[in-house]
Amino acid sequence: MGRRLKMGMIGGGIGSFIGDVHRKAAAIDGMIDLVCGAFSSDAEKSIKSGKELFLSDNRSYSSFEEMIFAEKLLPEAERMDFVSIVTPNHMHFEPAKLALENGFNVVCDKPMTLTIEEAVELEMIVERSGKLFALTHNYTGYSMVKQAKSMVFNGDLGNIRKIQVQYLQGWLSTSVEKTGHKQASWRIDPKRSGIGGALGDIGTHAENLVEYITGLKIDEIAADLGVFGDDRVLDDDGNLLLRMENGAKGTMSISQIALGEENNLAIKIYGDKGSLEWQQENPNQLISRWLEQPLKVFTPNGNDLYPEALNVSRIPAGHPEGYLEAFATIYKNFATHLMAVLEGKNIEKPDYPTVKDGVRGMQFIYAAVESDKNNSTWTKFK
Amino acid sequence: MGRRLKMGMIGGGIGSFIGDVHRKAAAIDGMIDLVCGAFSSDAEKSIKSGKELFLSDNRSYSSFEEMIFAEKLLPEAERMDFVSIVTPNHMHFEPAKLALENGFNVVCDKPMTLTIEEAVELEMIVERSGKLFALTHNYTGYSMVKQAKSMVFNGDLGNIRKIQVQYLQGWLSTSVEKTGHKQASWRIDPKRSGIGGALGDIGTHAENLVEYITGLKIDEIAADLGVFGDDRVLDDDGNLLLRMENGAKGTMSISQIALGEENNLAIKIYGDKGSLEWQQENPNQLISRWLEQPLKVFTPNGNDLYPEALNVSRIPAGHPEGYLEAFATIYKNFATHLMAVLEGKNIEKPDYPTVKDGVRGMQFIYAAVESDKNNSTWTKFK
Amino acid sequence: MGRRLKMGMIGGGIGSFIGDVHRKAAAIDGMIDLVCGAFSSDAEKSIKSGKELFLSDNRSYSSFEEMIFAEKLLPEAERMDFVSIVTPNHMHFEPAKLALENGFNVVCDKPMTLTIEEAVELEMIVERSGKLFALTHNYTGYSMVKQAKSMVFNGDLGNIRKIQVQYLQGWLSTSVEKTGHKQASWRIDPKRSGIGGALGDIGTHAENLVEYITGLKIDEIAADLGVFGDDRVLDDDGNLLLRMENGAKGTMSISQIALGEENNLAIKIYGDKGSLEWQQENPNQLISRWLEQPLKVFTPNGNDLYPEALNVSRIPAGHPEGYLEAFATIYKNFATHLMAVLEGKNIEKPDYPTVKDGVRGMQFIYAAVESDKNNSTWTKFK
Amino acid sequence: MGRRLKMGMIGGGIGSFIGDVHRKAAAIDGMIDLVCGAFSSDAEKSIKSGKELFLSDNRSYSSFEEMIFAEKLLPEAERMDFVSIVTPNHMHFEPAKLALENGFNVVCDKPMTLTIEEAVELEMIVERSGKLFALTHNYTGYSMVKQAKSMVFNGDLGNIRKIQVQYLQGWLSTSVEKTGHKQASWRIDPKRSGIGGALGDIGTHAENLVEYITGLKIDEIAADLGVFGDDRVLDDDGNLLLRMENGAKGTMSISQIALGEENNLAIKIYGDKGSLEWQQENPNQLISRWLEQPLKVFTPNGNDLYPEALNVSRIPAGHPEGYLEAFATIYKNFATHLMAVLEGKNIEKPDYPTVKDGVRGMQFIYAAVESDKNNSTWTKFK
Repeated sequence: MGRRLKMGMIGGGIGSFIGDVHRKAAAIDGMIDLVCGAFSSDAEKSIKSGKELFLSDNRSYSSFEEMIFAEKLLPEAERMDFVSIVTPNHMHFEPAKLALENGFNVVCDKPMTLTIEEAVELEMIVERSGKLFALTHNYTGYSMVKQAKSMVFNGDLGNIRKIQVQYLQGWLSTSVEKTGHKQASWRIDPKRSGIGGALGDIGTHAENLVEYITGLKIDEIAADLGVFGDDRVLDDDGNLLLRMENGAKGTMSISQIALGEENNLAIKIYGDKGSLEWQQENPNQLISRWLEQPLKVFTPNGNDLYPEALNVSRIPAGHPEGYLEAFATIYKNFATHLMAVLEGKNIEKPDYPTVKDGVRGMQFIYAAVESDKNNSTWTKFK
Repeated sequence: MGRRLKMGMIGGGIGSFIGDVHRKAAAIDGMIDLVCGAFSSDAEKSIKSGKELFLSDNRSYSSFEEMIFAEKLLPEAERMDFVSIVTPNHMHFEPAKLALENGFNVVCDKPMTLTIEEAVELEMIVERSGKLFALTHNYTGYSMVKQAKSMVFNGDLGNIRKIQVQYLQGWLSTSVEKTGHKQASWRIDPKRSGIGGALGDIGTHAENLVEYITGLKIDEIAADLGVFGDDRVLDDDGNLLLRMENGAKGTMSISQIALGEENNLAIKIYGDKGSLEWQQENPNQLISRWLEQPLKVFTPNGNDLYPEALNVSRIPAGHPEGYLEAFATIYKNFATHLMAVLEGKNIEKPDYPTVKDGVRGMQFIYAAVESDKNNSTWTKFK
Repeated sequence: MGRRLKMGMIGGGIGSFIGDVHRKAAAIDGMIDLVCGAFSSDAEKSIKSGKELFLSDNRSYSSFEEMIFAEKLLPEAERMDFVSIVTPNHMHFEPAKLALENGFNVVCDKPMTLTIEEAVELEMIVERSGKLFALTHNYTGYSMVKQAKSMVFNGDLGNIRKIQVQYLQGWLSTSVEKTGHKQASWRIDPKRSGIGGALGDIGTHAENLVEYITGLKIDEIAADLGVFGDDRVLDDDGNLLLRMENGAKGTMSISQIALGEENNLAIKIYGDKGSLEWQQENPNQLISRWLEQPLKVFTPNGNDLYPEALNVSRIPAGHPEGYLEAFATIYKNFATHLMAVLEGKNIEKPDYPTVKDGVRGMQFIYAAVESDKNNSTWTKFK
Repeated sequence: MGRRLKMGMIGGGIGSFIGDVHRKAAAIDGMIDLVCGAFSSDAEKSIKSGKELFLSDNRSYSSFEEMIFAEKLLPEAERMDFVSIVTPNHMHFEPAKLALENGFNVVCDKPMTLTIEEAVELEMIVERSGKLFALTHNYTGYSMVKQAKSMVFNGDLGNIRKIQVQYLQGWLSTSVEKTGHKQASWRIDPKRSGIGGALGDIGTHAENLVEYITGLKIDEIAADLGVFGDDRVLDDDGNLLLRMENGAKGTMSISQIALGEENNLAIKIYGDKGSLEWQQENPNQLISRWLEQPLKVFTPNGNDLYPEALNVSRIPAGHPEGYLEAFATIYKNFATHLMAVLEGKNIEKPDYPTVKDGVRGMQFIYAAVESDKNNSTWTKFK
């Protein structure tokens, strides 16, 4: 085998939550080295962040443009292979575009862009560029989510009839944005987040998880959004009805004012042969229910799993895998694909979220906001 | 203290699920004796049922009319004090009316009546009669449900913002009604069940639980009902959005085709100070979440409970109380009230569901069906 | 069918925990009426208790002797059929003996007697009397315990290799016996409890549960008892090693000073084909583990149960059954047996704990105390 | 800040379970680079392993001696800073000794050595060398284990009275060692494992966890070891009684034939003010119980934590941390210490297991084996 991949990061200066997550996730499997970063638009801060990450000063840039153009000039053996974009939503499109158009592959945080127009344009740019693009819908990286998807795909549940999905957090229960909480301040700001608040930040994860596991498209939604925090303009809560393309029905409940909830993403899927239940906060269990058998609990690397679930476990059964490992699976699958491409090989069905998932996510946000404005009228993705 | 109360049962012949539940629930606390019954419209079957319940043949009647008129003629020391109506929905109104109008108190299963018109009329009949009427929304009898209600009432949770309630069963996942399943056959039949299927059977419990715990009225609902079973005409599934009178929002998910679910009634309530979670299948835990404290779990007869919760526990902490005990609490509170009345005393705020809860339940069914017909338009109770 | 059985209670005046439990447990299934009681040695108190239980004054006695002799003189249609003994341990033997020798059947709380000599003598008395004798090891009445027993019996687990059993409570963590706590005061008193403290009160339940489920005898034990409460003389804690007759090994941990524990009786059984786990505080789940299958969870009235488990469920799956129902199963099986005997019939393998279980329990206490005195030397039951 | 640390690995060729775990754990925090390895005594295999890890061929050695001597000759900027020893037990002492005596710091897997004599000698070698030595008792790296330790240390639980610890696995339930299972074959072999089987592999973790959390030494143990697998000579199961130096008592149950168990390390600690419960398979919860408060559940980065627990969480509450993160904490704390030392600084109380923990572990194994030979006589560590 060849060499490790070289990653350049955009955003994610020291102190940032998600930048650190991306770095750790990229590091776990030993396939990727962080070689440079535009960690901050403040040159000094960027260099300081780079130092703490053991980078030499000349690889810490003060803008993504600078980084992309400077790296492009480096010899291939030194040059970054891809960028990882971990900025707020309004800073996804431009860096992604510039990177792709200058020959760099891209990993990008979600929601993919600020507006749906950007999303559609980015889809075209990715196609035109021939470069790889991964969107970090990290929850699809869990072993038990892969098992769930495979079970549905193989017909174990029969026809899907009912879905319950929720993504509940409580960290915006009080007005933390008024107390200098960095994460909060941009998430409640339409200029940086777009037209969706909780919708974009966590709703897109819920939407993506439903479509990823079931293999079904959401056909239409009826949304009742809530804005509970003082002086907020974006949704911090949402209650939705779902209709799937196959006739299944369901509910989605999202919130960032569900006081006391930490990161409670959970999904239940009911078919006419079997049913599944999975909770992100207890990710190493997949509960299944059956017509004529007792409830069964699948575990990573445990008995009776599909290869897709076995493949992503790094450690034996009973050794809990967590959020970082799931996140790392996105990077690992992206890196495996990129390594193959660099060696002139191909990979069938690479398993990581792409620009198309990003477009779906933006369609979801727009449909939900439109439905809510129309007093929860059923609204299709478009 | 005086004497045990004497109960006559309408419906509930041997083999019936809910009749047996009512008998056991009435028996646990030693306050009530079953003295007679119109267990079946077939005289022979009724007598056979009575025999197995150790009743003498002359107290087993073949119709509720016969029972009510015969018992009325008995001396007070022998005569039943109240009837317990455990028949299918279409057989609630007439027996209740006749009993009340002939001086008997009534315990009645839910949903209260076949139609909303009957419900409204029954409310007037109860008032006119001056007799006691209890509706067996049994889930309100759990100690932890009382604790939840008290916590909300005392402001521990602050303002309620979000509600999730679900009542999921799977027993109608297949066409059991075509295989002679007695419970199923009347529940899918509009003539015996009314316009709601799952809505009436379990949805009313969910609706009642929300209003009982929060002390808030549901203001309007948007319903998307499902009919998944072959050849069914009534809903066997439902997904609803809720708006409460105080501005709180929420979801309700009910189903009898949620394959593998047993009797999964669960509720989550989020306020701006604290939150609660309770699951009927694990009823001896009440999970609470807080802004600045760790998650706390309350247990029956455990630490830090309100008197309302302590009062209904019959056994020490750690000794699980179940469905029958919760059901018995309805009977106990009704019996306590009735004993007081018989002794010429009064009771402040007797704690059991009444005819008013029954009317709310019927309004809920009608609003949900109307909303569903109008493609999930928001619809108020009326 | 004939008539309900008539029960006379010894001990269990109003306010007593276990007397109330016995009454409710006896009442649930509608097979037993409480007709008389010697609730207290204080005549006035006994009558007061009787009144609150709706008994006429002349059936409330001030001693068990008075009750037994008076009831014996009543016509059969009025006379009690059996006594239920719910007094502290030192008051089990004499009433049981007198009842049996005067033709009354007996239900008795555990541990069976104050001393092992009494236990052995009582075994002979029961045999000689030809009367029925049930010991209320109530935890064997749970549906999932029956399922566990049947699974072992049918070889589903293969050879049993390892056992973990614990019974942990925390109510004696502080010196509650010095603050007038009635339950505590006799339980820490050797004159009323015998040579075992926690050993007798809860250890015998643990011992009985192990032997009931596995069908194996405990061969020898090594015990390290603890006396943590100030001024106590009896064990309030115990740690034991177990060796079973078939070579299986295990641990037993019991405590009444396990602060915060409510009533945490739990057992794990490991065979060479499968394993089981059950917890009394969550009694409606039986967890099973397998070599080549995922973990499965059995539930009362759920899928794939043995008839023995199905038979004791009174309500459908998902409707939690609790402590009182399990306790009631002892009474129900005893009552069913007694009714058959009264009708001149027989019953094969009646399923309730007997005087033999009581003798085993006393042997367990004595072996544990002896082992502990010998610095935890392995000690056989004798 | 300076530079990343450079790690050389001994053992852990591709396909090895624990080598891969060490590499991922070392990588997560971006402080350590793998620069060389003696992955196998077969030169070709070692090089092949190195290649897959993106190492150049000249840094893949065919023996630890070769690696240590070759690396010693490299300039400081290239030379490894420490070795990580991930071989079977019989190959711990010699490489550790050689590394230390040649100026390299050491991370070593547990149990520390093959014999107690080696352990004692290694302790002296470490002291003499002035180098750092970390033993990977990785379970102490969990945030909730740190919280538990801090709670005990700060007196929240009061005096510790009772301990239950278990470490249950099922992977040796059948004779997998006869089917070419690599992990199994050396673990059941005294030449490579030493005198303890399950005792060394998992028992030492349980012992270490007890002493780490409670801050108390185990004073003596009474052990009943089991050898259930066909033709095995080492224990694959063990049941032990514990006496702590402060008078607390407890049980320890370990097994590798607990069929169906995955990696069930769990501990319960009871004090006279509060109690704790933690399970490795659900590591993001620490359950606490209290005299006069409801049960509380602590979570990583949740409310009311001690700094020691907060410090080790890498991600926000509700984002599960798993086995690799806990393992990484050992590496992170070791690396932080080593970086400080390299910069001439000092660290107060570095928090990772040391050679002293390794000696305790070996004493535990020897005491247990001795006790077992003497029919479970109480035996002190020596």
